[in-house]
Amino acid sequence: QDTTWVFLPGVPREMKSMLLEQVLPYLRKALKQNDVIKSYILRFIGIGESQLEYELKDILDKQQNPTIAPLAQDSGVIIRLTAKASSEINAFKLLDRVKEEILSRVGDYYYGMDDETLEHVINTKLKEKQHKIASAESLTGGKFIEKLISVPGASEVCRGSIVCYDTSVKRDILKISNETIEKQGTISKECALEMSKNVADLLDASIGISFTGVAGPDSTEGKQVGTVYISIYIRNNKHIVHKYEFSGNRDRIRDRAVIKGNELLLNLLK
Amino acid sequence: QDTTWVFLPGVPREMKSMLLEQVLPYLRKALKQNDVIKSYILRFIGIGESQLEYELKDILDKQQNPTIAPLAQDSGVIIRLTAKASSEINAFKLLDRVKEEILSRVGDYYYGMDDETLEHVINTKLKEKQHKIASAESLTGGKFIEKLISVPGASEVCRGSIVCYDTSVKRDILKISNETIEKQGTISKECALEMSKNVADLLDASIGISFTGVAGPDSTEGKQVGTVYISIYIRNNKHIVHKYEFSGNRDRIRDRAVIKGNELLLNLLK
Repeated sequence: QDTTWVFLPGVPREMKSMLLEQVLPYLRKALKQNDVIKSYILRFIGIGESQLEYELKDILDKQQNPTIAPLAQDSGVIIRLTAKASSEINAFKLLDRVKEEILSRVGDYYYGMDDETLEHVINTKLKEKQHKIASAESLTGGKFIEKLISVPGASEVCRGSIVCYDTSVKRDILKISNETIEKQGTISKECALEMSKNVADLLDASIGISFTGVAGPDSTEGKQVGTVYISIYIRNNKHIVHKYEFSGNRDRIRDRAVIKGNELLLNLLK
Repeated sequence: QDTTWVFLPGVPREMKSMLLEQVLPYLRKALKQNDVIKSYILRFIGIGESQLEYELKDILDKQQNPTIAPLAQDSGVIIRLTAKASSEINAFKLLDRVKEEILSRVGDYYYGMDDETLEHVINTKLKEKQHKIASAESLTGGKFIEKLISVPGASEVCRGSIVCYDTSVKRDILKISNETIEKQGTISKECALEMSKNVADLLDASIGISFTGVAGPDSTEGKQVGTVYISIYIRNNKHIVHKYEFSGNRDRIRDRAVIKGNELLLNLLK
């Protein structure tokens, strides 16, 4: 009937070039569209999608231009704002106004725009404050430092990591005390605290972050799968430790631990 | 006209359940299909897609049932075999026959079936040979050990890692000699060799693997982006080091280094 169907291939590169070269020009022509459409993404961490929607309910209800689309992601929640206007400047004016309104409500959880991932923002904050970071990672197996090192320029802020998967590495390299290992176990508040401080000392870093816990599939030292301790030590400043009970499979628990570590770190660096 | 269109949502979980619960039963009924379709995946590393297709040209040309679909992936090449038969047993007979034919040509590059990833196979081989492994990682930033630890049961074979991103960590923790650091630089054959041996000694492992190189975006110590040294030390047995020049962006170079390290390790463990 009056409908035009567009079919695109699944291979991302092919889809992209067909969309850009064929579909969008076709649509612009067909729609006799001279308006400009611009969008950007606001990134949040530490707030769930449902709470965010609750805080923004009236703004979401009355949305028209820009449209406001919240979306839960593995590393937090994003909101995509899309505005239509007669010019680029006017589109960005519309976007900026709504952005401001949103941030006045949930700005505490906001950390970046567009492709500013958590790792990018943390990298920038560490650089601004002239920090050097090191991690001591047990269940996360190096995932925290690996993601931070994926950001170009990481060499200015990352010392490195001791991935202390085996208890012998915690004892022999990280110098976790025998008393802690024997009395509290390696999955404990005390062990996490020592890991974060000792790795900072050993690797001459101003910040040490540690992860210890049970990724599964089996429980360890009598602690159930999903139990994770994260500690952050900031020299001459703070030393925190938190316990979490994450759900999900092995990969999910390890991912969530890293994201939570990033969230804690970001809040301390703000 | 005579065509039935099926539209599915993009959200993976929704797509999967609709496909399984609605589309497949519909198709089976519509096709009055009693045949059984079975497929499996053969995994290869160390051979390119084009060379693999060249080696199998006549088999690929005459394929009918099973169908044979080679596909390049980031971590090697896979071949998907799909057979249709009157029963499951007959389908697997067809698959096994073609698998045997393929492996008689390119079996040297074969490492696993279906969801046996490189990390799974390496984990199994290490366990069989009662090895304990440790890594010393510079440009890869812990990615090698992180992937190995993602496999359940990794605690039986993984000691851990020293992520020595900063030169001070190579010197102070990994005890790379001043002579190597000053004369050869940290991106050198000599440094890679010392890293692999020293991390095995420090972490009490029977195998040490090391990665040092330039992930970019800028060149380092006069070495161009993409230069990577990988060394593997097997106690009382072997000590190898290889130099590579990888192309691509930062992420791609780091990924390729890890995959190449896995390939080298697998070949030594075979």
